[in-house]
Amino acid sequence: MSVSLSCHRCGTRYDEVRVRCACGEPLWIDAEPTTFTWDDRRIPSGIWRYEDRLPIDRPEGVARAAGGTPLVRTPGLDDVAGGRVFVKDESENPTGSYKDRGSSVAIPHAVAAGDDVIGTVSYGNMAISTAAHAASLDRECIVFVPEGISPVRLELIAQYEPTIIRVRGEYGALYEDALELSERLPISVLVSDAPTRISGYKTALFEIYESFAPETPDVIALPASSGGFASGVWLGIRELERAGAIDEPPRLCLVQTAAADPITRAFEDGSADPTPMSPEETGETIAHSIGNPDPPSGARALAAVRDTDGVVVSVTDDEIRAARRRFAVDGGFCVEPASATTLAGVSRLADRGGVAAEDSIVLVPTGTGFKELGTGETDVTTETVHGADLSDRLESMLSPRRE
Amino acid sequence: MSVSLSCHRCGTRYDEVRVRCACGEPLWIDAEPTTFTWDDRRIPSGIWRYEDRLPIDRPEGVARAAGGTPLVRTPGLDDVAGGRVFVKDESENPTGSYKDRGSSVAIPHAVAAGDDVIGTVSYGNMAISTAAHAASLDRECIVFVPEGISPVRLELIAQYEPTIIRVRGEYGALYEDALELSERLPISVLVSDAPTRISGYKTALFEIYESFAPETPDVIALPASSGGFASGVWLGIRELERAGAIDEPPRLCLVQTAAADPITRAFEDGSADPTPMSPEETGETIAHSIGNPDPPSGARALAAVRDTDGVVVSVTDDEIRAARRRFAVDGGFCVEPASATTLAGVSRLADRGGVAAEDSIVLVPTGTGFKELGTGETDVTTETVHGADLSDRLESMLSPRRE
Repeated sequence: MSVSLSCHRCGTRYDEVRVRCACGEPLWIDAEPTTFTWDDRRIPSGIWRYEDRLPIDRPEGVARAAGGTPLVRTPGLDDVAGGRVFVKDESENPTGSYKDRGSSVAIPHAVAAGDDVIGTVSYGNMAISTAAHAASLDRECIVFVPEGISPVRLELIAQYEPTIIRVRGEYGALYEDALELSERLPISVLVSDAPTRISGYKTALFEIYESFAPETPDVIALPASSGGFASGVWLGIRELERAGAIDEPPRLCLVQTAAADPITRAFEDGSADPTPMSPEETGETIAHSIGNPDPPSGARALAAVRDTDGVVVSVTDDEIRAARRRFAVDGGFCVEPASATTLAGVSRLADRGGVAAEDSIVLVPTGTGFKELGTGETDVTTETVHGADLSDRLESMLSPRRE
Repeated sequence: MSVSLSCHRCGTRYDEVRVRCACGEPLWIDAEPTTFTWDDRRIPSGIWRYEDRLPIDRPEGVARAAGGTPLVRTPGLDDVAGGRVFVKDESENPTGSYKDRGSSVAIPHAVAAGDDVIGTVSYGNMAISTAAHAASLDRECIVFVPEGISPVRLELIAQYEPTIIRVRGEYGALYEDALELSERLPISVLVSDAPTRISGYKTALFEIYESFAPETPDVIALPASSGGFASGVWLGIRELERAGAIDEPPRLCLVQTAAADPITRAFEDGSADPTPMSPEETGETIAHSIGNPDPPSGARALAAVRDTDGVVVSVTDDEIRAARRRFAVDGGFCVEPASATTLAGVSRLADRGGVAAEDSIVLVPTGTGFKELGTGETDVTTETVHGADLSDRLESMLSPRRE
């Protein structure tokens, strides 16, 4: 493609890409003069392109930034996944996770319903997202966290200045408590599978289908913990089916951490309902965002898998680390460990013949890895070179490459 | 708005939002059945909606995820800014900063031009972005960092596994060295104002205008360091002017850190060219992404300001901290310190009467704050409550609110 460059200062033109003009100033590339027509491009942004299928009118504030995330063909991951990989990058949400789709609907809905105080039971992405959206609508927020929450997680939530209550005792019991408190007191504790959150999550599925049209994806892989996101994706599939927009659903591949995987266990033993796991049965995992031992939407997630001829698999921390590295090194994506499970899970599925090479596989990394990088504890290999020696060093590094 | 909810398991319907069905399963909201039409919505994503104005065809990989960021009306910041605030959230890029707009054009361009090795001189967002995009296109990447780079920054870059060279000596001298090395050796060191990066940056300005149409923004505020982003925004303005799409440019408000602000100084003393600042003249700042003492596109950034009847201001670390807090607490946005300068800068401008209350002011936070949060060193106020006492505690916290 031919290029034309010019200097802002002296006007000299060049027909090759170079950085500086002879006059010393930097150059820029002149584009072909074409007209700009805005009129036919005004599309409501993010999840609000589906406003007519959501239970609220498009609200004000940061909720407008949710969704509209990219779907990226990522062939570098095909070998691991056993098929044709597409990455649905949910890190590109205002607080860095898909939770914003849910918060963008649930919090404005609660506010419109007259609730002045917003609550949430979470120490991770849902807490961060909820606190941000409540702040954006100038509403008080109370976040219930486990007593032993790490200072690092606290900081991520506290920046929006919600009230943070550390709960001593059984953290898992808070789900039921939350529903009861919301009934009785002037607070709306928006739990992980609040129906308004689920409505927001379905927009991820709509976007995937819209990006693929007229083709359709064969497999959609997502991490599963409480079962909320899987429920939202299933809701979206059912709406598309009911509208006659798709004939066959995608196969849902839900992935759990082997440390706490009640949904996988129920899938494997053919149960309709996951059995809650005891503290003794559950272990530690680097996938801190998942691992709910008693998922409130676990049965619905299972039903989604069975309805779509899908599967639930569990993956180990070692598999998660390896997958995370592949996302970065072969895809250019920085994903959190819980998100890396998607690639690890599909890889397991591929190993047992559950994926065909021509299958379109959508991996949905649910949140950015940037929130937890930067502890400075990783060993990084570097070399040190004096500025004056740089040319020689590079020459020896690069010389075998000369054509 | 009336709602209808149903249970996935037993089919029971409800006409109010509640979380659980009487059968125990979670409920979801039924949307009005409307048709899905994809055909008229297939718009190329992100920066590639402007492909015909960019010097390359839409490439493969993570470059497809760049741009298309939301513009959010954020009235909570109006009082500080003195006008009507809109936030252009550049954190919602694949590596969390606007640098992806530049990398998405520059790296594929370099690869198409036959360069196998991509280089960059950066220890921050540009390094992260460049390493990610090179990895996505399966090209080797060499990142030149200052010898004393912190382990935290290293980790953010190293995840994509580029070669990292710590340069001992004058880090600022690397810009000129980079151009020379790129000429002579089989490497393309894509500096901060590489023309292909600048072309990518202009898409931010196009998106702002498209979001505003048919209105136009009055002020656009961005941080300035090397002058590259300001150059890209100016290039975009000039293209719109040349196409007759706008009559009057927006007033550019460039903001620098008071610790190293050669562009502000040149603006204030009427110079055409910034004077490079010596190490003795520059100080430390929390706005680590900015503060280039010898900006290679500094003169062009100044020209942009003068051409748009704009201004350059400097802000202190205290102002930056306060602005960052306001972004989070009143907007729901987690922005890095360099990005918070935008609000602090406009606030200064407003203090001296440079902003009218009816002005539309676009703040462009250039990168996410999540990359540096989570050190766990901030003091966070919480209270600890036993699960059994939660109800009583909440009741006393919330009871003054009862209507």
